[in-house]
Amino acid sequence: MDVFMAPRSVAIIGASRKTGEGSFNVIENMKEFGFQGKIYPVNPLADEIMGKRTYREITEIGEPIDVAIISTPREQIPRIVEDCATLGIKGAIVVPQGFADADEEGKILQDQLVQIAHQRGIRILGPNTLGVINAFSGFTSSFMSLRRKRTPVGVICQSGIFFVGSALFTGMMGKGIDLGNGCDLDFADALEYFGKDDQIEVVFAHIEGMREGRRFFEVAQKVARHKPIVALKTAKTEPGAFAASSHSGALVGDHEIFEAAFRQAGIIAAHNPEEVLDYTKTLLHLPPMQGKGVGVITFTGAGGIILIDALHEYGLELAELSPTTIQKIKDLSPPWMPIQNPLDIWPALMKHGMNYVYGTALREVLQDPSVDGVICIAIAPQLPDHAYLDATGVIRETASSLPEKPVVTWLYGPNQALVSQRLEEDGNVISFPTLPRAARTLAALYGRQLFLQQTSSPPPKFSVEKKGRDVLSRCQEKGDTKIEGEAAQVVLEGYGIPMARSRLCGDLREALQAAEEIGYPVVLKISSPQIIHKTDARGIVLNLQGPMELEEAYTSLIEGIKKRTPVAKVEGVLVQEMMASGIEVILGAKRDRQFGPALIFGTGGIYTEVWKDISYGIAPLTPQDARRMIRETRCFQLLKGARGEKGYDIDLIVDCLLRLSQLMLEAEEIQEIDINPFVALPRGGAAVDVRMIVGKRET
Amino acid sequence: MDVFMAPRSVAIIGASRKTGEGSFNVIENMKEFGFQGKIYPVNPLADEIMGKRTYREITEIGEPIDVAIISTPREQIPRIVEDCATLGIKGAIVVPQGFADADEEGKILQDQLVQIAHQRGIRILGPNTLGVINAFSGFTSSFMSLRRKRTPVGVICQSGIFFVGSALFTGMMGKGIDLGNGCDLDFADALEYFGKDDQIEVVFAHIEGMREGRRFFEVAQKVARHKPIVALKTAKTEPGAFAASSHSGALVGDHEIFEAAFRQAGIIAAHNPEEVLDYTKTLLHLPPMQGKGVGVITFTGAGGIILIDALHEYGLELAELSPTTIQKIKDLSPPWMPIQNPLDIWPALMKHGMNYVYGTALREVLQDPSVDGVICIAIAPQLPDHAYLDATGVIRETASSLPEKPVVTWLYGPNQALVSQRLEEDGNVISFPTLPRAARTLAALYGRQLFLQQTSSPPPKFSVEKKGRDVLSRCQEKGDTKIEGEAAQVVLEGYGIPMARSRLCGDLREALQAAEEIGYPVVLKISSPQIIHKTDARGIVLNLQGPMELEEAYTSLIEGIKKRTPVAKVEGVLVQEMMASGIEVILGAKRDRQFGPALIFGTGGIYTEVWKDISYGIAPLTPQDARRMIRETRCFQLLKGARGEKGYDIDLIVDCLLRLSQLMLEAEEIQEIDINPFVALPRGGAAVDVRMIVGKRET
Repeated sequence: MDVFMAPRSVAIIGASRKTGEGSFNVIENMKEFGFQGKIYPVNPLADEIMGKRTYREITEIGEPIDVAIISTPREQIPRIVEDCATLGIKGAIVVPQGFADADEEGKILQDQLVQIAHQRGIRILGPNTLGVINAFSGFTSSFMSLRRKRTPVGVICQSGIFFVGSALFTGMMGKGIDLGNGCDLDFADALEYFGKDDQIEVVFAHIEGMREGRRFFEVAQKVARHKPIVALKTAKTEPGAFAASSHSGALVGDHEIFEAAFRQAGIIAAHNPEEVLDYTKTLLHLPPMQGKGVGVITFTGAGGIILIDALHEYGLELAELSPTTIQKIKDLSPPWMPIQNPLDIWPALMKHGMNYVYGTALREVLQDPSVDGVICIAIAPQLPDHAYLDATGVIRETASSLPEKPVVTWLYGPNQALVSQRLEEDGNVISFPTLPRAARTLAALYGRQLFLQQTSSPPPKFSVEKKGRDVLSRCQEKGDTKIEGEAAQVVLEGYGIPMARSRLCGDLREALQAAEEIGYPVVLKISSPQIIHKTDARGIVLNLQGPMELEEAYTSLIEGIKKRTPVAKVEGVLVQEMMASGIEVILGAKRDRQFGPALIFGTGGIYTEVWKDISYGIAPLTPQDARRMIRETRCFQLLKGARGEKGYDIDLIVDCLLRLSQLMLEAEEIQEIDINPFVALPRGGAAVDVRMIVGKRET
Repeated sequence: MDVFMAPRSVAIIGASRKTGEGSFNVIENMKEFGFQGKIYPVNPLADEIMGKRTYREITEIGEPIDVAIISTPREQIPRIVEDCATLGIKGAIVVPQGFADADEEGKILQDQLVQIAHQRGIRILGPNTLGVINAFSGFTSSFMSLRRKRTPVGVICQSGIFFVGSALFTGMMGKGIDLGNGCDLDFADALEYFGKDDQIEVVFAHIEGMREGRRFFEVAQKVARHKPIVALKTAKTEPGAFAASSHSGALVGDHEIFEAAFRQAGIIAAHNPEEVLDYTKTLLHLPPMQGKGVGVITFTGAGGIILIDALHEYGLELAELSPTTIQKIKDLSPPWMPIQNPLDIWPALMKHGMNYVYGTALREVLQDPSVDGVICIAIAPQLPDHAYLDATGVIRETASSLPEKPVVTWLYGPNQALVSQRLEEDGNVISFPTLPRAARTLAALYGRQLFLQQTSSPPPKFSVEKKGRDVLSRCQEKGDTKIEGEAAQVVLEGYGIPMARSRLCGDLREALQAAEEIGYPVVLKISSPQIIHKTDARGIVLNLQGPMELEEAYTSLIEGIKKRTPVAKVEGVLVQEMMASGIEVILGAKRDRQFGPALIFGTGGIYTEVWKDISYGIAPLTPQDARRMIRETRCFQLLKGARGEKGYDIDLIVDCLLRLSQLMLEAEEIQEIDINPFVALPRGGAAVDVRMIVGKRET
């Protein structure tokens, strides 16, 4: 990536002859931006551009070139990239639209580019990209004129809007890489680069879809441990994904699996553009938030309440202030004023003045051991008229004198933008446009701290029985794509996942034998295509404790059905291990196109599709990952014991998810596993029904 | 309210002698704000304030006074309000804190105020309030100096922060009423006033809690039909509600019931401060959005995708543009450019220039019959340097020449604030800081239109049997507070709500008689405190078709239990109507402190508490309300037929909810009804278990 970000020399193929307003001239932009490397314009129709000798062909230049920026009609580009490779140029930035983002011809041209990159070793950024921007080296390939400061934020994106910026991004990008259609260089490459780049402290990624999800995931796992990564995943919904596949020709992928991969890798997911700004700015400037306890200083009870709602929503808490802190503010307030967190200091400051009261309160709260971060509510008055209402100075000074805990603010009043800007000048305080945004951002800061503190055991390695893999091989040889019933049971058993055993029996003798093998108690279920609701038809007998009960039940079952439902053709009787009543969950896995094997957990049974109460994890899972997956679902509330019940065997579910994870990594032929229901019991549990899909992935 | 909002004369009791910076002098503020009425300062320590003769006591004034603003120590206030009443003053604004928001003494003082208001007929605003502000009459009671324009937006709030404003409210309030602790004047009074006020076109309410929820609901139902009401309900969470009860001493109430009341009355709920600004501004300025179809004009594919996600999330759709519209843009674009909605016009404008291309595209899209509203994505460039990138002019002109459909924008680039402001100057276009906010606001505009178009049948009046009410009276006479079993069944039957009949029988003879009365098929269930899981214990026999089967089953049930579970003490056998398997829902009602009788519907059975899949409605329900309640739940997906199943009897559920609504209105002694489960079948359905709580409400 270095040749792309800070080249010593650059060839510009299809350089514009126009300059000035509306010319979109990249050479002009580079010069404005302070680029010091050598620039070689290539344009067969010009002799010189902006005082530089201009070449008809790139082959004429005859000097070493690090990177080529190509902006010619699309048909010429494969040949030009070939020429670049021949000349030993290491990187090409292909700017124009009209490739996989456009028509069939564009797709073919893009495939040609990919092939050249693979065969000739030249790396390609794009097509359909503004390329790169680097405020540190002054290099840019953007045809839009952009100015950026040397902010230590690295941006990876799939669109020029993040280069052009908005109120939410402007000024926050010191280096940027626009992947465009991402035909060769992908997210993993860009993230790896920023991960090692000492000039970059925070990385932001805008992602529609990516080719190399697995590699990205692995790189992110490493980078996130020492550098925060904020990601905005777009193309989340079905229509959004459809549009994205034509926008950048990207594989968009399953949004839920992206979210799971983000969580597991420690990437901070931004769900809307405001979060991008809030998280990036805060992670860049503020100290860590070590716990959930928030101290609040306010002039307004109503603001305090809006904030309390938000803290609760985002998983933070009002700190329980120490009696000393409370007393300090009580001493300044009228006697009838109830003093608690949020600290309403309005009556106090009417008596003792803004600076003294705000300073005292903020200092006390910051030094209170129960407080992990502070939210200050203050007024943004018209200045200079109402300067006596301005707390900017005292907040800034106090925060910078006690820099161990994050201090954020929300200002109300007529002058929010200006006063917020003044508050943020030193970088010790971040000011948010609303209280919920302040709370949400502190929660992200705390989430980052939890991630860094989290100790992760390695994924366990279970010893498995060969019989499971053998069954799979046999099925593949036979060309089966679906594995169910006893075959699937053997696979699970091979990997140590318990399954309720069952056998279809043709007569009583077989049933007795099956029950003996399965072990009592057992259940009998009539098997007949005509009987759909077995319970209503009295076609089920539960909890048979021994052979005598089985025999009696078998006979009366068959006879009862004959008598009551003479039309039913009985195929046999299913003898099944008696499962106590428990919680039905789904355990499963699928091979994701982008992230590879992904595990699935959630509410099972007939409710799976209605509730969509599902969480995902990327294999290999650690025990912590498996527990997180379970905690993320609503059915965790049932499993841990709702309505005063005692809980269910979560450890067993964790174990099964880890075993499934290993199975998916070892048996690459499995595309999907669907264990539904798996019945969780207070102790133990077992799969009742399982279905696998094997074979080549459909594309 | 008129005397509060536009008094001809005002007495200021506890008028400040200080003026200028930091003096918080209300007389000074009124004069700055242009108030033309008479002002009588009352302060025993001064002879004149700001050139006005000052009175020692209000009784000295001797002129007619419309309203008194009181800012004295709290102990004096009840006496002063008494004096005001004696002098025939119609309204008092009680500014100070220190009442129900503070300590016990404050609560007692506030109770005294309430009593004076009731006995003497004087109306009180506050205490703990900035009072009112009215840019139209120039009247304000605020001790903060505030300037507001004559914007036709009326604000009702429980806190001064909405008067002082913020980036989200500033300039949007032409009239404001701060209810403070709301001891007398409440939301219903303020809303009724703004409802009739021709100077006000949109009402915004900030609500922590209210006393007269029922009256507010009824007023809102009327006002919302001709004037949009936007509400921000705070104190939503448990800690928030706890804090609010001490902030304004208000009854906070159940957040879900508030939300239901909002929906039912046609109030537009804002869930965060940004929505307040977005909705208010847009409802004030833009034409209605008649359907879901959105046309998008963009320079950026990535922006289009962020928008498509948001449209989908908020229930809107990309309009299917007509071939004519598509062709017009195709003609301007390079041949390889795929043209569809969102219309990416960047390649076209590189060829034909900003104004021509943007103007053509916007005009065509606005005239396309499939389009109900337009979102324009454009650049906010540095001006005047990059004026060639500015589409402000052409968007404004085109939107104002075709004013039938809403046009909103999102601008990216370095100059969003300024260029957005220019775009909004005429009021024909609203510009949003992010695309999701633009989509969410158009969805609110469309929701408003749906509400206005919705035809509502009146709540039906069922003829009911007297026996239900008789049972209730008898229970009340006996002092029962809980009604279950057969008594509850009679109440439901009296109101025509079907219930699965059952009877506990001591012997076979009784069981046969019960089954005869209930009607076959029936179910037998063992009743024994020792047997909790009846199914596991084989204590249930289903689907008994006649007396012979019943007899056989009864005997073998009793004997089987004796044999298998000898410790079980059998109390009898429950004979119950056989219910086919269906969907378990909960139907219920409760008497809410603020809104009165509220209906409940949702997922029933053991999942009620885990899923919290519950919707509410305020009685009397219309059939449309009942259907909306059902549609709002996830279990509606099951009821309408998930997984290819055919649906369940939703009409019956609607009918039962309407009957419950009538029951709650007629039987005021019922505090709660809990029918769980009610089993919904493909045709029919019945309550299986019901429990009522009657008697005086706990306070």
